[in-house]
Amino acid sequence: MNKIRAAIVGYGNIGQYVLNAIEAASDFEVAGIVRRDATNIPEELAKYSVVTSIDDLTDVDVAILCTPSRSVESFAVEILAKGINTVDSFDIHSQVVTLRQNMGKVAKESGAVSIMSAGWDPGSDSVVRALLEACAPKGITYTNFGPGMSMGHTVAVKAIDGVEAALSMTIPTGTSIHRRMVYIELKEGSDFNTVANAIKTDEYFVNDDTHVMQVQCVDDLLDMGHGVNMVRKGVSGTTQNQLFEFNMKINNPALTAQILISSARATMMQLPGCYTMIEVPLIDFLQGDREELIKHLV
Amino acid sequence: MNKIRAAIVGYGNIGQYVLNAIEAASDFEVAGIVRRDATNIPEELAKYSVVTSIDDLTDVDVAILCTPSRSVESFAVEILAKGINTVDSFDIHSQVVTLRQNMGKVAKESGAVSIMSAGWDPGSDSVVRALLEACAPKGITYTNFGPGMSMGHTVAVKAIDGVEAALSMTIPTGTSIHRRMVYIELKEGSDFNTVANAIKTDEYFVNDDTHVMQVQCVDDLLDMGHGVNMVRKGVSGTTQNQLFEFNMKINNPALTAQILISSARATMMQLPGCYTMIEVPLIDFLQGDREELIKHLV
Repeated sequence: MNKIRAAIVGYGNIGQYVLNAIEAASDFEVAGIVRRDATNIPEELAKYSVVTSIDDLTDVDVAILCTPSRSVESFAVEILAKGINTVDSFDIHSQVVTLRQNMGKVAKESGAVSIMSAGWDPGSDSVVRALLEACAPKGITYTNFGPGMSMGHTVAVKAIDGVEAALSMTIPTGTSIHRRMVYIELKEGSDFNTVANAIKTDEYFVNDDTHVMQVQCVDDLLDMGHGVNMVRKGVSGTTQNQLFEFNMKINNPALTAQILISSARATMMQLPGCYTMIEVPLIDFLQGDREELIKHLV
Repeated sequence: MNKIRAAIVGYGNIGQYVLNAIEAASDFEVAGIVRRDATNIPEELAKYSVVTSIDDLTDVDVAILCTPSRSVESFAVEILAKGINTVDSFDIHSQVVTLRQNMGKVAKESGAVSIMSAGWDPGSDSVVRALLEACAPKGITYTNFGPGMSMGHTVAVKAIDGVEAALSMTIPTGTSIHRRMVYIELKEGSDFNTVANAIKTDEYFVNDDTHVMQVQCVDDLLDMGHGVNMVRKGVSGTTQNQLFEFNMKINNPALTAQILISSARATMMQLPGCYTMIEVPLIDFLQGDREELIKHLV
């Protein structure tokens, strides 16, 4: 059986975990790694092709985009147009529908498949939300994140004048409401109260209960663990008070990377187009004989 | 927009909840109810066609099979052969693969769609199990049922000599191990110890920690509430100790009925064949515009 040849596009934190996940999946092989700079090659990549353009790799079935969300579209459109499948963990919820249209158009034209927003939220959490609506169509689902580090909020804090280093933790307080705990190192000569006020009035924080704390060393606080608690109370038919809950405590980049790999597998079984995870049969994400999977899982 | 015309086949406990769920779903209408005896019609069915053969109903898109698992195949094969879609909550896990083959063959020949084992286990729990394997391919998922009434075990107790009435409750003790709490009314002249021993050595109970108790009135103990606790600890890529948990506390027949209706909707969007829920995109189970659903759920 031919292995699925995957290219890793971008080799930051997620890219490194994606490499681990590909190496752990016996139906995959690494086609190569695409980086802006292909000269300074870390030891674990010594045995692989490291290139600056995907054109320099051979027989790529699927590109795993490990780039920031804002550059997903340009990479995906370029790669899909070459007839190569893509997966990404694009996480700007409000732009999912538009991006799906844009990438879907290119994918269909070139006969390729994209599975987008394939992380954990959006991603596996979206799958749980869809399942719970199928089980209880009326009701409210609350998605409570953390405790865990928010990448987006941390970047926003780092951009504020006077901040040397930062960590923004997301703390769930229930019913999809979150507290922001912000830990900062100050630049010399900066005033804590001025910086704290700038953070609390930033658009990322202004609507949340935000607490800013000065620490000696932000790096000592870093932990890639994250979690979610999803709760739905809803109505099945006319029966009220059906209760559902989903919890996870996970290494954040490791889970994102695994879902990207499972989704890369699933691209091989879809018709050309762009899909979110709720549009793909779950069995397609899994390795192995379909009847064996059904026997084991159903 | 045309409504999906659904026939209810079998009008026991599940059938009644299915009627509620159809009436609550604005994209469905009741095509009629198929019963062995179409003469003694309960009040809530007065406005519907109640017939003894599905041939006496018009324009049926999908038949919701609310019959015991053992008679699913004969009903489904007959109805699929007429080109009518079917859904069922067939729950004999060990026979799913074979039944899927048999029904799939008929469905493909007649251009119809069957979604089988569409309850909560097998069913929505199967979807969760598949999702968790996509998130963490290595590891163990434990499915802990209850506390709640087991229909199969209750029927098995009722079949034992000397039992007037019975209830078998499933109590989870973790790692997919369950205690059986059996409540019985004795027939006059029966010996409790003899009956209790017969229950404990029955094939349904012999491998479980089983406790038998005599009560005055089993009916006073009946409660249709049930639940599940699913736990997976697994590996994403090479990262150990990823923790996942799914819990629900639900009215059992109401949830089964809702999932049957959501699955009936999904039959309208599949190619001919027989599918388990993990083979169907989750979005297909949901009512509404697809882009709106993606915006709302992803």
